[in-house]
Amino acid sequence: MTSRTHAAAASVPNSRGGLHRQVVEQIATQIIKGDYPAGSFLPVEADLCEKLGIGRSSVREAMRVLTDKGMVEVRPRSGARVLDRASWRRLDPDMVRWTLDGGADREFLADLLEARRIFEPAAAALAAERATGADLAHIEAALVAMEVALSADGESRDIEACVDADVLFHNAILAGTGNVVLREFEAVIEAALRAAFKVSAELARSYDLTIAAHREVYEAIRLRDVARARAAMDKLLRVASEDLRLS
Amino acid sequence: MTSRTHAAAASVPNSRGGLHRQVVEQIATQIIKGDYPAGSFLPVEADLCEKLGIGRSSVREAMRVLTDKGMVEVRPRSGARVLDRASWRRLDPDMVRWTLDGGADREFLADLLEARRIFEPAAAALAAERATGADLAHIEAALVAMEVALSADGESRDIEACVDADVLFHNAILAGTGNVVLREFEAVIEAALRAAFKVSAELARSYDLTIAAHREVYEAIRLRDVARARAAMDKLLRVASEDLRLS
Repeated sequence: MTSRTHAAAASVPNSRGGLHRQVVEQIATQIIKGDYPAGSFLPVEADLCEKLGIGRSSVREAMRVLTDKGMVEVRPRSGARVLDRASWRRLDPDMVRWTLDGGADREFLADLLEARRIFEPAAAALAAERATGADLAHIEAALVAMEVALSADGESRDIEACVDADVLFHNAILAGTGNVVLREFEAVIEAALRAAFKVSAELARSYDLTIAAHREVYEAIRLRDVARARAAMDKLLRVASEDLRLS
Repeated sequence: MTSRTHAAAASVPNSRGGLHRQVVEQIATQIIKGDYPAGSFLPVEADLCEKLGIGRSSVREAMRVLTDKGMVEVRPRSGARVLDRASWRRLDPDMVRWTLDGGADREFLADLLEARRIFEPAAAALAAERATGADLAHIEAALVAMEVALSADGESRDIEACVDADVLFHNAILAGTGNVVLREFEAVIEAALRAAFKVSAELARSYDLTIAAHREVYEAIRLRDVARARAAMDKLLRVASEDLRLS
């Protein structure tokens, strides 16, 4: 889990965090499922209070969170209008979780993979140029954690731990670019890998195919071989996305 | 201005929006300037109330916003700890504005441009494959708006209007990819163009050099010429970034 994700998770208010989060999640999930289509209005404040058994301040707090995610627009007097999907913050960690909880979304996963195939080979090339010793150590530690998670036999293999380490591996490469903007794209990687975990029953097999490709990426970065790092990341993602299409 | 940005601006609470925003902005700007380095703690709630002349609920609301931006982590009893810059949400529209208000940040601008040069040529290529008639109309309308803004003579040229149209032009191309994840990258484009507007005294000259390149990108997408669209966007961004380095 990245520090970014951690910070986002911590953004839930302290005291009545549980209740608050439940309310937001309930309304958000209904919007994602299409119960409230774009352009429609959510029930008025008083009705939401009654329906959900909560106070006005909780409803207002929930609306603030949904506004921040780009899902609704609160207008004075007329209430909360649901916005078009184009304005939703699809990569917000909460949004990703709610989307995936609603069921496997292969279209979203395909978009995530397409984006990764655009920026990650370039990021691997930049990391080969610029990664510090500490960056290399982070990349290697994540790789080793993936290998350990996969080294057990059969049923006991810890695929979730492998996904966590995979997220760290790719984020460490982004950090190795030294570019604060590319670093922001870790949300794409995290979403893609968590989504793959949701949709693929054969993720263990997929990792067997790509673990060597992960090591190849790491070695190329460590050896400062820019072209090889780019090609290795390109290959890794091609194999991973072909494999997901098959499963 | 994009709908995303509009929604973010609307996320400021309605009633006491002004005061609330001022408090958040004041603390955020101090953190960005380095007054509170990573690992340090903000003053305790009671001190902040006194110092800023506001109530406890306003301070709590401000901490929630800063937590959401990845700037602080609120710990029970010990207070709000400032997080490392690596966990800040650098592309959040408020964060971008606060960063730029603090002065021209050429390093941030260079990172933004590097990211754009990675994903925008690929996006132009995908748009050449997939843009709908409506997407093409949006791209062309933005291009025409840029040309109109630049067509006046000398001092009367409206460079800010040209920047707005430029943002729309590039975002329309992202939308033309049909990929909801790439669409999220419009925050990078918006931040880059607003930052360029801040740092460059010669932006008008820069636009004179790139307006033809913008039309070339549009024509290639319209003609479904994938390779030419990619090359034209690559050239546009190369010229734009060289020019910013010169100015």
